Amino acid sequence: MRPRTLRDQPGRGGPSSTDSHAQGGEGGDPPPAPLEVEPFGARLAAAVAARESQVVVGIDPDPARLWPAAVERAPEARALLAAPAGDTRFDVATAVLAHALALIDAAAPACVAAKPQAAFFEQLGFAGWLALERVCAYARAAGLLVIADAKRGDVPSTAAAYSRALTGPAPGLDADAITANPLMGRDALAPLVTGARRRGAGAFLLVRTSNPGAADVLDLQLATGEPLWERLATMTAELGEGEPLADVGAVTGATVPEHLARMRELMPRTPFLLPGIGAQGGDVAALAPAFAPGKAAGLVSASRSIAGAGDARAAAHAQAAREEAERLREAAWNLA
Amino acid sequence: MRPRTLRDQPGRGGPSSTDSHAQGGEGGDPPPAPLEVEPFGARLAAAVAARESQVVVGIDPDPARLWPAAVERAPEARALLAAPAGDTRFDVATAVLAHALALIDAAAPACVAAKPQAAFFEQLGFAGWLALERVCAYARAAGLLVIADAKRGDVPSTAAAYSRALTGPAPGLDADAITANPLMGRDALAPLVTGARRRGAGAFLLVRTSNPGAADVLDLQLATGEPLWERLATMTAELGEGEPLADVGAVTGATVPEHLARMRELMPRTPFLLPGIGAQGGDVAALAPAFAPGKAAGLVSASRSIAGAGDARAAAHAQAAREEAERLREAAWNLA
Repeated sequence: MRPRTLRDQPGRGGPSSTDSHAQGGEGGDPPPAPLEVEPFGARLAAAVAARESQVVVGIDPDPARLWPAAVERAPEARALLAAPAGDTRFDVATAVLAHALALIDAAAPACVAAKPQAAFFEQLGFAGWLALERVCAYARAAGLLVIADAKRGDVPSTAAAYSRALTGPAPGLDADAITANPLMGRDALAPLVTGARRRGAGAFLLVRTSNPGAADVLDLQLATGEPLWERLATMTAELGEGEPLADVGAVTGATVPEHLARMRELMPRTPFLLPGIGAQGGDVAALAPAFAPGKAAGLVSASRSIAGAGDARAAAHAQAAREEAERLREAAWNLA
Repeated sequence: MRPRTLRDQPGRGGPSSTDSHAQGGEGGDPPPAPLEVEPFGARLAAAVAARESQVVVGIDPDPARLWPAAVERAPEARALLAAPAGDTRFDVATAVLAHALALIDAAAPACVAAKPQAAFFEQLGFAGWLALERVCAYARAAGLLVIADAKRGDVPSTAAAYSRALTGPAPGLDADAITANPLMGRDALAPLVTGARRRGAGAFLLVRTSNPGAADVLDLQLATGEPLWERLATMTAELGEGEPLADVGAVTGATVPEHLARMRELMPRTPFLLPGIGAQGGDVAALAPAFAPGKAAGLVSASRSIAGAGDARAAAHAQAAREEAERLREAAWNLA
């Protein structure tokens, strides 16, 4: 029987880790060594095993397509935002957060992680960013890993600030993993990767995305013969630390399954984040090569196919989402 | 004599544009045509001419290095954030906003634009995002164009949300331009470019950045012989609309001036955003090729070299920033 939630995630530097260090400390002793955090690859493997799921529920709420029934959660959402009574600046963020709470409750039992998409919260302004903070905390409390899908990338000093924003402790989002854009090269990636690593978190780098335009740049053939995405794959493999699963992952579009075997060859220890299931096209059965190193080596992300599963069946969004997430979970689990 | 501020920027679809349409409207008439917004290239050229400046002041405040004297602006900043009394979640954002207000006041007279760096606000959580909203509004009121430096890039539906967040009206930042990452290709860029265009705003795409790691990816030689950044330059030129200056710009690292002539050849109508002056290295005199099509074709961005100009002279940060911005302004203006 799979656990419904996993409130005490293994390995994260929480109170229990602190306690185990504190036991050895006495006045006059040298300061304790830095907290040993369990590396992301190990945390991911443990979470996948405990929840028997590789499914990641994407949270990218369109204010025009929220679940009508989620309005019941609005008072709870408004309280979570600590929104002053009558302050209309929080109204849309409240509705979006209410929807996200309902979506997490519905999908969490079949999932190992939630992946909020930063853009859909940023478009609501500061109240949206506050809702994003609450979504991350709520998903974590539901036993899910949190992948902050923000695809950041910038010069090193700026990348360090993004790292604090996404994987840092509050007021950071304290995410378990992020997505990042590798275009600016290794020194730009380093603060994102090492900032995450210090917290037991991971970074998924864009390698070959699932949108048609990925062919414009990522598929360009290099003078050395391979496409650009293969070079990014090699860089991703080199940046990761940890066995058998590394702490630097790859975003690998599920709409190009013919690439997956080659990706696995270039990135033998790399967790793959496989978007593109459902609304963006893509088929779970085609993903088998991703799971070659083990069940946790491939995460199957789905957003609209879960949140929108009930669109054809009025007023049954939560139930339909739960069923669709479970269908995906079972399909992926049996493949891997 | 240059104007100190430019409160009524030309061409933006503000109240005056609305009024001019409303004058022609009567009951029963067909709905007015969409507001004609002046394209970003034309707005940029007009702003550079009016302010006699191509200098962009970067706003990326490190909470550990704020101007001590800016604490005087804290009450004003706290009021702008509408922060409830005693709510400590706004404290750091208040200090950062106070610093940014002082920096804008000091540098604005020598600048044509302000470039807030999203990461330095996101790291403060939702209160930081609110401060970012206020920074954008304050810079605009000081007569500056606002370039939201966020380097976003994602699949089309997500890119559309980023577009609303950055160049959309409130709760969007209503920025005059953004920076964007082209790795995911044309369909991913389209919502950012067209979303900006509809508002008379622009998008500066990463072409060749100034960090050492840019060599890892952007300098890779393609099978067709040219480096990747040249391909991105061609794409940037093709995406831009407008004469003589296009509304899609290029982020072109000022630390590689040897590339500038080639960039100008590939992107004859493209505004260049030239970071890397000062703290990141780079020399204004080397930038001459950027300005070949006209004074507004090159924007000279500086962050730490302006904000930190007074570090050697205690308690004179604002004056030193003003002088450094003016020095840069004059150097660039006389080159172009």
